[in-house]
Amino acid sequence: MIEYRNIRIALLGAGSVGAQVADQILRHGDELAARVGAGLELVGVAVRNPDSARTADIPQHLITTDAETLVRNADIVIELMGGIEPARTLILSAINSGADVITANKALLAHHGPEIFDAASQVGAQIFYEAAVAGAIPIIRPLRESLAGDRVSRILGIVNGTTNFILDRIDTLGESMEASLQMAQDLGYAEADPTADVEGFDAAQKAAILASLAFHTHVPVDQVYREGITKVSLDQVQAARKAGYVIKLLAIAERVALEDGREGVSARVYPAMVPLTHPLAAVHGAYNAVFVEAEAAGSLMFYGAGAGGIQTASAVLGDLVTAARRHVIGGPGVVESAHANMPIVPISAISTRYNITLEVTDAPGVLANIASVFSTHGVSVESLEQKTVGVEVPTATLVIGTHVGIEADLAATVDALAASPVVERVSGVLRVEGL
Amino acid sequence: MIEYRNIRIALLGAGSVGAQVADQILRHGDELAARVGAGLELVGVAVRNPDSARTADIPQHLITTDAETLVRNADIVIELMGGIEPARTLILSAINSGADVITANKALLAHHGPEIFDAASQVGAQIFYEAAVAGAIPIIRPLRESLAGDRVSRILGIVNGTTNFILDRIDTLGESMEASLQMAQDLGYAEADPTADVEGFDAAQKAAILASLAFHTHVPVDQVYREGITKVSLDQVQAARKAGYVIKLLAIAERVALEDGREGVSARVYPAMVPLTHPLAAVHGAYNAVFVEAEAAGSLMFYGAGAGGIQTASAVLGDLVTAARRHVIGGPGVVESAHANMPIVPISAISTRYNITLEVTDAPGVLANIASVFSTHGVSVESLEQKTVGVEVPTATLVIGTHVGIEADLAATVDALAASPVVERVSGVLRVEGL
Repeated sequence: MIEYRNIRIALLGAGSVGAQVADQILRHGDELAARVGAGLELVGVAVRNPDSARTADIPQHLITTDAETLVRNADIVIELMGGIEPARTLILSAINSGADVITANKALLAHHGPEIFDAASQVGAQIFYEAAVAGAIPIIRPLRESLAGDRVSRILGIVNGTTNFILDRIDTLGESMEASLQMAQDLGYAEADPTADVEGFDAAQKAAILASLAFHTHVPVDQVYREGITKVSLDQVQAARKAGYVIKLLAIAERVALEDGREGVSARVYPAMVPLTHPLAAVHGAYNAVFVEAEAAGSLMFYGAGAGGIQTASAVLGDLVTAARRHVIGGPGVVESAHANMPIVPISAISTRYNITLEVTDAPGVLANIASVFSTHGVSVESLEQKTVGVEVPTATLVIGTHVGIEADLAATVDALAASPVVERVSGVLRVEGL
Repeated sequence: MIEYRNIRIALLGAGSVGAQVADQILRHGDELAARVGAGLELVGVAVRNPDSARTADIPQHLITTDAETLVRNADIVIELMGGIEPARTLILSAINSGADVITANKALLAHHGPEIFDAASQVGAQIFYEAAVAGAIPIIRPLRESLAGDRVSRILGIVNGTTNFILDRIDTLGESMEASLQMAQDLGYAEADPTADVEGFDAAQKAAILASLAFHTHVPVDQVYREGITKVSLDQVQAARKAGYVIKLLAIAERVALEDGREGVSARVYPAMVPLTHPLAAVHGAYNAVFVEAEAAGSLMFYGAGAGGIQTASAVLGDLVTAARRHVIGGPGVVESAHANMPIVPISAISTRYNITLEVTDAPGVLANIASVFSTHGVSVESLEQKTVGVEVPTATLVIGTHVGIEADLAATVDALAASPVVERVSGVLRVEGL
């Protein structure tokens, strides 16, 4: 066996994930070296404040604030600082100095993925980002490699642990949205400002990354349709369960056949009703899962912890071993393939099902009136349940499930229902996925 | 972009998987080429009988009976003929002619893995075998790469679709074992001679492959402990469900701490009670799933179709794209690492829990007598349920769940119970996993 020189690793950031990664490299170096076929040498850890308390024992001489010099002297740069800048500039520097890059930075990839992948392909560098989506769950590599000979048709992902934790508590404990969010904050799952999670921004970034990868095309994050979970009520969750569904915040990436014969891609995030028999319905707490439908492989699901320092560190280290093995092998990297160049399909053009809850006047002719709203818009009703609720004033609650329809028609139907004189109120609209 | 010469692919076998693979290469060659960065050329398909009917339109000039010549003139050899010989000899020829090899042949890998991996590492060839375990589910690559920087502690796999189909019907439809097996045969899930599936031989081969890969060591298939599902009764399945469990045939690979401070590996296959809350409990029908516990990543699960021509073809094509990309990149392959060299832990030394059903005389002192059998063997009882069943002769059914104990002690306890004068009959013993 040829002795290979040590592979030089630079770490940017020593927060909860970075500290775990440093710790693993420093403590399990021999085992990693055996798997790689060469030694792994941590040559430096760039931090903002060298005097901050660290959770790992990183030798002081490795700590530096000069990230720019560090990345120019490494074979592999691991970026775990987060945020757009200076992460973007440092990664581009690393690429141009000939290093491979490992990053868990979903915001950066969602916003500047093409720039980074293009820079990498110019010089034959490789970008690894298993930790950027769904934490420790291997999903990037299966999409990139295992399914490389197949055609993915759809991805339904529970990719945000915080919102799954909240929705699961509402469903299983009957808690209110507010109480569940408070508990998520108390346990550290949700930030003091929970907007990124509960409004679906985090999930949208992951949807952009998954859609780009699965369909070999570029999906900008600002073209991901996004609805958060803040309008989901305990009533809705309980009614859904009674009907055999659970409400999950889904990140959806879908191949869509266009009228001109081309194919487009839809990427979207919204809370949806998922049948209890679907494997995604069994994903509880802060766990993540990505359900993939491919033409040949059929249905696949990848399940695991979506966040957490040590779990995310596992994904980073998997990338590190792969990247380091490639250094031992030599040769240029695999180019991130975005050859498909598919048009982005707007939310209005996608196909889905609606579940609509209406408060209506309970009088003769009302049902016929409502039915005509649906038929006028070409939307077909699949199920209808009526509950009489008003005693003095006769009102009723109608829960209407549609067949698959075009989003624009479904939305127009809801608008027309809201404007109808027999409808007191549209009290809830949810899409149904996974049927 | 440099134009790369076509990569020459030889296919051995044109059965249900082989025909699908040929079809995909012939029909989707352009898309595969875009993903690889070079053309893929199917240079030949070796079959036993060139006149057999094929499900795919393979041009007649590609069909050959001279597999030996074919493999010596290919860059990548895809072996889908199955069986030990001539598959083994042809794969070794391919390796020695400088080809990379893709195989779905679990029997060959379980029995001759080390010989094949050694031959490949001698010449820097690479062996891909995603399709050999759990069909289309990407499990080999995640274990090989994604978790390469982590330490797997345990794998619990539902890796045989036939037995899962049978057990699921018993559980959900209340069918007998015989009726479920008959249905599996009628639907083509089970062979006329179902021994390989129902006695766990197929699962044991997959357990050997998974254990070898997860623990970077060699686990021979004849050292995998194996029990099939033929002794599982409808009564047991129903009693398990009432108690909150479902019975699944599990392939288990586990890292075991030995008394001398070293680590060993246990690989075993048996029907076990799995809590209904465990993600594996939601795996229905002929689906497969592999649940992986790793030190850093925590719990992961990989779910999907375990068999089927087109599903397995998806896994083969994923390997093909990876292998072909490596040809474009050049350089020697990654050596299959079996550096750990761990001792195999016999079934008697593993830790597990027993669930024991006893028919006993219903008389004073019987419970004390039975309790003493457990304590004599150092086995701690976790739960005990008594149902009085005899009316004329007072007998009772006892269902006893143990805490975790050493298999040898648990088995000795069962032997002692069977020999006890107060025990009429030990009517069922099942291990409990996934708690």
